[in-house]
Amino acid sequence: MRTTVGIIGAGPAGLLLARLLHNAGIDSVVLESRDRAYVEQRQRAGILEQGTADVLRAAGAGGRMDREGLRHDGIELRFAGRRHRVDLPALTGGKSVLVYAQTEVCKDLVALRLKDGAPLLFEAEALAVEGAEGDRPSVRFRHEGRESVLECDHVVGCDGFWGVARRAVPAALSQAFERTYPFAWLGVLADVAPSHDELVYARHERGFALLSMRSPAVSRLYLQVPADTDPAAWPDERIWDELDRRLETPGGRRLERGPITQKSVTPMRSYVHEPMRHGRLFLAGDAAHIVPPTGAKGLNLAVGDVVTLARALVHRRDTGSDELLDAYSATCLRRVWQAERFSYDMTTMLHRSPEADGFEERLHLARLDRIATCRSAGADLAEAYTGFPVG
Amino acid sequence: MRTTVGIIGAGPAGLLLARLLHNAGIDSVVLESRDRAYVEQRQRAGILEQGTADVLRAAGAGGRMDREGLRHDGIELRFAGRRHRVDLPALTGGKSVLVYAQTEVCKDLVALRLKDGAPLLFEAEALAVEGAEGDRPSVRFRHEGRESVLECDHVVGCDGFWGVARRAVPAALSQAFERTYPFAWLGVLADVAPSHDELVYARHERGFALLSMRSPAVSRLYLQVPADTDPAAWPDERIWDELDRRLETPGGRRLERGPITQKSVTPMRSYVHEPMRHGRLFLAGDAAHIVPPTGAKGLNLAVGDVVTLARALVHRRDTGSDELLDAYSATCLRRVWQAERFSYDMTTMLHRSPEADGFEERLHLARLDRIATCRSAGADLAEAYTGFPVG
Repeated sequence: MRTTVGIIGAGPAGLLLARLLHNAGIDSVVLESRDRAYVEQRQRAGILEQGTADVLRAAGAGGRMDREGLRHDGIELRFAGRRHRVDLPALTGGKSVLVYAQTEVCKDLVALRLKDGAPLLFEAEALAVEGAEGDRPSVRFRHEGRESVLECDHVVGCDGFWGVARRAVPAALSQAFERTYPFAWLGVLADVAPSHDELVYARHERGFALLSMRSPAVSRLYLQVPADTDPAAWPDERIWDELDRRLETPGGRRLERGPITQKSVTPMRSYVHEPMRHGRLFLAGDAAHIVPPTGAKGLNLAVGDVVTLARALVHRRDTGSDELLDAYSATCLRRVWQAERFSYDMTTMLHRSPEADGFEERLHLARLDRIATCRSAGADLAEAYTGFPVG
Repeated sequence: MRTTVGIIGAGPAGLLLARLLHNAGIDSVVLESRDRAYVEQRQRAGILEQGTADVLRAAGAGGRMDREGLRHDGIELRFAGRRHRVDLPALTGGKSVLVYAQTEVCKDLVALRLKDGAPLLFEAEALAVEGAEGDRPSVRFRHEGRESVLECDHVVGCDGFWGVARRAVPAALSQAFERTYPFAWLGVLADVAPSHDELVYARHERGFALLSMRSPAVSRLYLQVPADTDPAAWPDERIWDELDRRLETPGGRRLERGPITQKSVTPMRSYVHEPMRHGRLFLAGDAAHIVPPTGAKGLNLAVGDVVTLARALVHRRDTGSDELLDAYSATCLRRVWQAERFSYDMTTMLHRSPEADGFEERLHLARLDRIATCRSAGADLAEAYTGFPVG
């Protein structure tokens, strides 16, 4: 099997890249180890930066997003008994975000790919990337019980943190930067209208809580829990009670409760692999970097990566020049590190860490106080939240 | 001996408080353990926030400051081979700072106090604050070989981190927040014109360096060194060579060199004592809080404290109400924690810590990149650098 661009992974990075290349007339094959149902159901992020939404629209994947996505013009910070709304458009010259789940983005992109009749193989498990240093890289994979080889001009690893693509970069040429956190998120989906019309990020003595939503009828809620928490230790009522305590809804009102349909624990990690390219192998999205979810940056970073990469691949096709491909890693990493910084700061500022001393706790409260009282600090946060420029 | 306000310590906090009270017609006695020459010579900070300069002017202590002080409209950040100027007035709506050494401020305030004929006792060592809980607090002190007692309505501890005043606050009613750093500053004074007309803060692989000045003819220079450094290990030439390496002056030019007249190692510490008041004893300046010098906030915080306290003491004299005195600690601490946050962030961002891993190093570079490329982030820094409002 042969194609121009071999793409490993049908998450948002791989699917969007395939779409961008298809629109530019470059053929690709997408290999996905899971089945379609899994890809269309796994719950991930839900906040699209304005630039991300623009990219999806321009790619022809914005129809349902624009009908069903919820435009949000603010987020609320709660801390030390205070409440502060960050007015996104007022602080950024008009920018906002869109609440539209990653899983919906994936559904839309899968549907487009299949409608295009372009190759997207589910249950096709990539085993290894080979020959990345040469000019005929390939992906060895298993599909329908037998091993095959996909020969390519370029290979793109969009196969997430645990994928095989990154392993093809020799350790001697790589640097990994990593941070783990001594806490995790217990996340639930509940069939109930969200109790607040914007996201609420709460720092509380008992730990962080986040009120979010998937739609006007579905709430997405998170609680900081110890890193090794078993979701079974959290019956529904305990979750609602704890959310009420930490979110401290004004007037002591309780959250609207409803059936919890999904419950899971997400570990928190920061990770960057440098460089994001080795020969003709390129890494994009979680294959190259992980952010803790507090900054809502994971999906948006992946989109930035593949936009940059698609542009570089088109440039090469049109001019024969590798210039933009050579710049890919450095271009992406600058944005990646801004997102890492922002996600780290949001995470440490809003969580209670068992490792933090009193000095650090006071610093985090001072950071929140600064954001709430200094327009520049608020604008810095709002600009980061609504999106870093795609280089 | 009896007075309305007993002030321990003739540093800038104690001297300025005495001046503010004198101007308001409230009598005070200042006790200073050292002699006059020591007070007028010890080298400390050199950056006055605009608000600090305004306070000194309004107190009648701004004459020489306005003649000899150097108005600075910018600072330069150097990192990763880049140079970025932070334009203070452009980012803050017109604010700047004044380069005028703390030691000069002290000289001016001592001269005013002596001219006023108001009590300022040198070599008067405070031994203990007594009776802070009652309405007749006193300071026991040793002067000219014998012990005396200074009876007061209120006592103010302006006697620095190692002073006796803070010890009069029962530990059970106090909380201390502290951070030490695994590095120190080697600071030198040199009789040579500064090689740059604004302060230069350099983050370098080899460690932090700061180019600063005391006057058009005197340079003040700092190098990050390990915490236990002996200044004798740094002959003059080694200092100049290291400054050249870290400051990376454009075009590879070396700094102008001149005779080094003073050389010392300053440890770095963050410290806050809460509350800043116990009964009729008030703590101000370094007696209550320490910041690492990177943010140039120590002297300015002390000025904020005593302005707040003088206002509260005058309010009590005029109305009999303790309202402002009761609010003193909380009012000051809000500003103190902003300065602690800023000083901590400047310190960690600009130094190389032996304890930091690669992830943290990258974060600090991303913070500097953000300040250099995002106006809001630059404005947040510029507003903090030129001064937090005195509450």
